[in-house]
Amino acid sequence: MLKNSVLTLVLIFSFAVGQVSTSYPEIADRFRQAVLTENRGYEWLKELCEIGPRLPGYPESYLAIEWAADKMKQIGLENVRLQKVKAPHWVRGNSEKAVITGSGRKLNIAALGGSIGTDPAGLTAGVMEVQDFTELELRSDEAIGKIIFYNRPFDKTVANTFAGYSGAVDQRGKGAAMAAKYGGVAAIVRSVTSLDDNTPHVGIMHYADTLKKVPAAAVGVQDADFLSRALKANPHLKINLDLSCRNLPDTTSYNVIGEIRGSEFPEEIIVIGGHFDAWDKACGAHDDGGGCMQALEVLDLFRRMEIQPRRTIRCVLFMDEEQHQSGADRYAFVSDSLQEETLAAIESDRGVFTPRGFSVDSDSLTLLKLQKWQPVLQRCGIDWISAGGSGVDIKRIKNAKAKIGFVPDDARYFDVHHSANDVFEAVHPREMQLGTAAMATLVYLLSEEGL
Amino acid sequence: MLKNSVLTLVLIFSFAVGQVSTSYPEIADRFRQAVLTENRGYEWLKELCEIGPRLPGYPESYLAIEWAADKMKQIGLENVRLQKVKAPHWVRGNSEKAVITGSGRKLNIAALGGSIGTDPAGLTAGVMEVQDFTELELRSDEAIGKIIFYNRPFDKTVANTFAGYSGAVDQRGKGAAMAAKYGGVAAIVRSVTSLDDNTPHVGIMHYADTLKKVPAAAVGVQDADFLSRALKANPHLKINLDLSCRNLPDTTSYNVIGEIRGSEFPEEIIVIGGHFDAWDKACGAHDDGGGCMQALEVLDLFRRMEIQPRRTIRCVLFMDEEQHQSGADRYAFVSDSLQEETLAAIESDRGVFTPRGFSVDSDSLTLLKLQKWQPVLQRCGIDWISAGGSGVDIKRIKNAKAKIGFVPDDARYFDVHHSANDVFEAVHPREMQLGTAAMATLVYLLSEEGL
Repeated sequence: MLKNSVLTLVLIFSFAVGQVSTSYPEIADRFRQAVLTENRGYEWLKELCEIGPRLPGYPESYLAIEWAADKMKQIGLENVRLQKVKAPHWVRGNSEKAVITGSGRKLNIAALGGSIGTDPAGLTAGVMEVQDFTELELRSDEAIGKIIFYNRPFDKTVANTFAGYSGAVDQRGKGAAMAAKYGGVAAIVRSVTSLDDNTPHVGIMHYADTLKKVPAAAVGVQDADFLSRALKANPHLKINLDLSCRNLPDTTSYNVIGEIRGSEFPEEIIVIGGHFDAWDKACGAHDDGGGCMQALEVLDLFRRMEIQPRRTIRCVLFMDEEQHQSGADRYAFVSDSLQEETLAAIESDRGVFTPRGFSVDSDSLTLLKLQKWQPVLQRCGIDWISAGGSGVDIKRIKNAKAKIGFVPDDARYFDVHHSANDVFEAVHPREMQLGTAAMATLVYLLSEEGL
Repeated sequence: MLKNSVLTLVLIFSFAVGQVSTSYPEIADRFRQAVLTENRGYEWLKELCEIGPRLPGYPESYLAIEWAADKMKQIGLENVRLQKVKAPHWVRGNSEKAVITGSGRKLNIAALGGSIGTDPAGLTAGVMEVQDFTELELRSDEAIGKIIFYNRPFDKTVANTFAGYSGAVDQRGKGAAMAAKYGGVAAIVRSVTSLDDNTPHVGIMHYADTLKKVPAAAVGVQDADFLSRALKANPHLKINLDLSCRNLPDTTSYNVIGEIRGSEFPEEIIVIGGHFDAWDKACGAHDDGGGCMQALEVLDLFRRMEIQPRRTIRCVLFMDEEQHQSGADRYAFVSDSLQEETLAAIESDRGVFTPRGFSVDSDSLTLLKLQKWQPVLQRCGIDWISAGGSGVDIKRIKNAKAKIGFVPDDARYFDVHHSANDVFEAVHPREMQLGTAAMATLVYLLSEEGL
């Protein structure tokens, strides 16, 4: 019936319901066939995207939270609950403009998350272009009173686009603080994206407690190139920057949690989730609405296929990954306080593209056990299971035996990341759903075998 | 400098030019950086797509052949030549229509390659819907005088979309012959595609010598569903099918060939190529203009990076893969007649998506040698090297020691395949160029190490 390395993995067992003998490869095939036929998570993502932006405190975010809890109840999850989270409340406001004075040329910008706004009249200053903080420090005497324009590109020649992102994102995260350190009055940052588009790609920025807060915005790549050329033609050009964003007092938001209690070892918990908040320029279809809907459909698959797991499977939709990870901190604090036994935690937060592998943070023996399952997971596109980082939210769960990041293909992730490009239409149903099948199969193996 | 399994692969050597000591992983990185910076093959693909359709005999195909030969000369290839091929000359003509009589509802159809046309007035007949040849045989008494409508869907639930394609394509290939066998007067075939669009996806069909030739067309998936519903409502509905396609006498076309002679073992040849013809509904960006441009850029990389290969690298753009593989037959016949020593032949003809692996047709020891190179090729996205089929064109070269198919991600290939969707805009530059780097690295390893 089965061949080669898969043979060693075959265990015949019975479903609690149906009394059908089914092997692991057959389960993988059934999950894959179900998700690719029904596209349920993909259809849910469409509904979710229609609700609106999901930053903490945004009115639509509460509608989305309610929608997710209702969905969990509809599919028959147990212990559906909202876990209260104290989250930052940053709002973009109605106005964001950057105009080169004199010519009136507008630049395509968007405030970075966490940034303060400008005065209502805006801020007008000259511009200093730098590639990195070293250059800023070396030329710090020129920085005083200037808008610091960080223009180091995303390196598109790396083997993995996450390395390109990591190599450029410091400008976005610390650019405003470093500008302030040397007397700059604002920061404009080249969008951290693999696409040569003119859409601002936003994301969080952080101030330093000891330094003045100055406003920060991302600029589209094409306008970053334009501004660089314009500065060469006229080093004295000035920009009027007008941002209406602001930080309101912290707000209350919620993690959304639901589970299927295990029949034999209910105290052993398999967490699967993604983050429910998303930047406001689009609906966060890839980042991370898609990952949340994959997690939700994994549990739905157990329900609709009437598979009773031996261990508890818990879906956690974490609030506020993008800013302060307050949802992940809250979940981990509660889980650790309750001394819950987290067998494994799985996170999908790298876009919902074609599955490639799983990246595992665990001890070596646990990793080896997981790697033996690869031939089964191959049926859902998983080519490898390797040691590596897991995910921003799950890595906070101290007592999880294995923390597992789902790794899809990365070629197009930073084309859409944190921008108006991250819409439902950018998601390919087969690519997304195959990832759901891979994670469902992994959850099933974990639930049957333990670690 | 290097770790783990990669360590065993490191050989220090010198370039013929530059005297730089460079390891294999470093070469892989250099290739990757070059192709992702310059996007040369991708830009060439844009030029190629602007020329027009490339079916043998089409006027634009000769312009494209000339363009490719000129490009080979411009990049400094040796022995640039056109290899004469006697190829089929099928033309679509100006008219293709299918109209439900009475209602006047048009169906979105396109003639299948190789099909005869109808009389100028068209052909009007009732319609018999079947799922497969077995059903047709069982209900053969109903087939006489009917248009046979094959409506078995592409199975989208398989792990690999090529399996979905294989499971449905018999209707397209043999549907007309089987219709004729049972007295049918034409065949209309549900498009063999993974997309729920209404674009006809065409492709070759074959007649049987002993049976009457009847016309055959593909219908868009949405209209296939519509027609099926319409037949349930009115089993007696008739379609007027009007196709102006025809088969002209065989024409002369050309394979385009250029090479870089090896410095030490010029008699050992590494072939890399794709097929240059493409269906006429778009420009064949993925199938297989992209594969051809990848092969061309592999040789260009050796030239522009001034790397002198030890063995001969030959780029072959095969004409007429889509219909009779006459170009591949011709190339193999000449190569075998000359008793050429083909060390390896590499084909890219599965779309130019993100690289996943290489599928190898060789003896076991040769496969093992290739598999040891995987850690180097990983730097260009190659997760695996496995035994399997290679490619339609290269598999004809009898004396090739290893026949190697480039395997990119397959999720989206049959969305665009053989349809108006297969346009330049459907190609992602990073995905395409990473494949070029993977194949360039493989060619380099072959050239340095032999097999």
